[in-house]
Amino acid sequence: MAVVTVLGAGMMGSALCVPLVDAGHDVRLVGTHLDDEIIESLRRDGAHPKMKLELPRSIRPFFVHQLEEAMRDVEIIGVGVSSAGVHWAAEQLTPHARPERPIVMITKGLELSGERLRVLPDVLADHLPHTGALFPAAIAGPCIAGELARRVETCVAVTGRDDDVLKRLCDALRTNYYFPFASSDVVGVEACAALKNAYAMGIAFATGQHDARGGQPGSVAMHNAESAIFAQSSMEMRTLVALIGGNPSAVGWLPGVGDLDVTTNGGRTGRFGRFLGQGATLQQAIEKMEGATLECLDILRVLEAALPGFERAGRLKPDDLPLLRHMIDVALHGAPVAVPYGRFFTGTGAPR
Amino acid sequence: MAVVTVLGAGMMGSALCVPLVDAGHDVRLVGTHLDDEIIESLRRDGAHPKMKLELPRSIRPFFVHQLEEAMRDVEIIGVGVSSAGVHWAAEQLTPHARPERPIVMITKGLELSGERLRVLPDVLADHLPHTGALFPAAIAGPCIAGELARRVETCVAVTGRDDDVLKRLCDALRTNYYFPFASSDVVGVEACAALKNAYAMGIAFATGQHDARGGQPGSVAMHNAESAIFAQSSMEMRTLVALIGGNPSAVGWLPGVGDLDVTTNGGRTGRFGRFLGQGATLQQAIEKMEGATLECLDILRVLEAALPGFERAGRLKPDDLPLLRHMIDVALHGAPVAVPYGRFFTGTGAPR
Repeated sequence: MAVVTVLGAGMMGSALCVPLVDAGHDVRLVGTHLDDEIIESLRRDGAHPKMKLELPRSIRPFFVHQLEEAMRDVEIIGVGVSSAGVHWAAEQLTPHARPERPIVMITKGLELSGERLRVLPDVLADHLPHTGALFPAAIAGPCIAGELARRVETCVAVTGRDDDVLKRLCDALRTNYYFPFASSDVVGVEACAALKNAYAMGIAFATGQHDARGGQPGSVAMHNAESAIFAQSSMEMRTLVALIGGNPSAVGWLPGVGDLDVTTNGGRTGRFGRFLGQGATLQQAIEKMEGATLECLDILRVLEAALPGFERAGRLKPDDLPLLRHMIDVALHGAPVAVPYGRFFTGTGAPR
Repeated sequence: MAVVTVLGAGMMGSALCVPLVDAGHDVRLVGTHLDDEIIESLRRDGAHPKMKLELPRSIRPFFVHQLEEAMRDVEIIGVGVSSAGVHWAAEQLTPHARPERPIVMITKGLELSGERLRVLPDVLADHLPHTGALFPAAIAGPCIAGELARRVETCVAVTGRDDDVLKRLCDALRTNYYFPFASSDVVGVEACAALKNAYAMGIAFATGQHDARGGQPGSVAMHNAESAIFAQSSMEMRTLVALIGGNPSAVGWLPGVGDLDVTTNGGRTGRFGRFLGQGATLQQAIEKMEGATLECLDILRVLEAALPGFERAGRLKPDDLPLLRHMIDVALHGAPVAVPYGRFFTGTGAPR
């Protein structure tokens, strides 16, 4: 067993603590300054207000001002802040980073730096000392937090650049319901984890169009259309992963099609895409989400900003990525949903 | 426009006639000797009894004894019989096969010939004259027949070995809701089309286990587990496609993950897997399916027979394909469902 401190007490950071305590670790969960209510509730009776679930009382909750205490003798550090919080988290962790203390991120996202798209472990690494010896690892793959916290069987990819650290992390995380699998393709795995949020929105366009045509749940639905968009998403993610510098094969397993599948079935991104498919205006769809974080919009904004650079470099043609371009038109510029099925499966990276 | 004759008036053969008439062709639908009731009903009032839908009256229905008449001046031949009917269909078509008449199959399956697994266009080609000039083409991809017949947007792969024939077929099939995309990888595309039926059963094991644990629809489900099995299915299908002689990249688009997604959401294979996941014995699950054709069992039987040959040839290790081996144990030998998550993503073809 090890001392494990997780920074960020939102859904996913908190859920990760469940297999960690079940694996026998001393687990400390530190809220950010946005998580005070969650930490108060956990301290009171173990209830996680967002997850609507009582967490094991052996998870020890800490307020952000107690970070120093929570980091005492820590052996593994988890990072579960929002993607916008990565730079803040880096500042908090810098005094505690050591070459012998693996850091593992569950925060997902992409940042544009000049004309380069970067995955968050690279962004965090910029801030940390000792990164030669201790490049941050990351967890990706199909995992709805509320299911993991209820101990549903869950398989995830754990990616990093040091085989020994990866092995140690996989060993530390494994339980009889949480199954980590090592991958050395940090950029491919993490790019998939970010991209799937955008594409799950596009797949849900078809569900929304089914609703708009008067379809009932369980009736002949739009599964043909949904699955066509799913397949095109898989192909476009391969193209994008290669552009970002990862191995397109990451799309073929947990971080890609696995995570895309779960996000389509269970996430808020799908609800948002469905509203748009129903014909809601962008403003109406955002209002219907009642303030929920829409990672898909962040990812689409970053990708929109990156596309011209890839085109100037000759790495992308204007006809490539028709689904992504349509999602950008709809979710950032208010265009109506009109999925360009006829332009799928052509251009760079098209199947033969 | 062209004269198009489709042999086989089941769900998929009949559904294919809808975009064909919408594209302006002279469409003739010929029942097999098992389809007499369907043809009678179509002749009476256009109603397709299995599809529970009135088909366009411009589709001309023929009984099997009228095949000669239905083939007069035919320009494109469609084959929509069951997989068991392929040899029979070949006999019927032989007198009508011409180098200038493309044949396009929607029948799916795998046949074991010695130690070789063969896709059905190859099996059909054995019987036909002129195959040098006229290798059968095939359609694969995410398509629920009842949705296509109701004109839901549908994207499919059309595969064959002659680029001109493929182009002609894609042009003939395209409408404003049916989108065909050409692929030259006949074995890869057709292997996926067969394999997805087995793997959709495995993915549904998780849904059944959710039911067995008292889960309600819409509650925290087993999406994490389903999507882990989906991802493992994608990887095992790559391994199998390569063993069968296709390009593993076929798994990445419509014939692979696209068709797997639709089969999981909408097919009877999923219902069967769900019963098994709930804890039904094999016999009980088969009885609950009330005589429905279970292609998954046929495919699993063929694969079970083929695995020892691949192992003897050193192309497969005993630890490879743990999900397939578990599905064989459950669906052919009555073992209880116990998905081997911990053995996923290892062995031949494992991601890095």
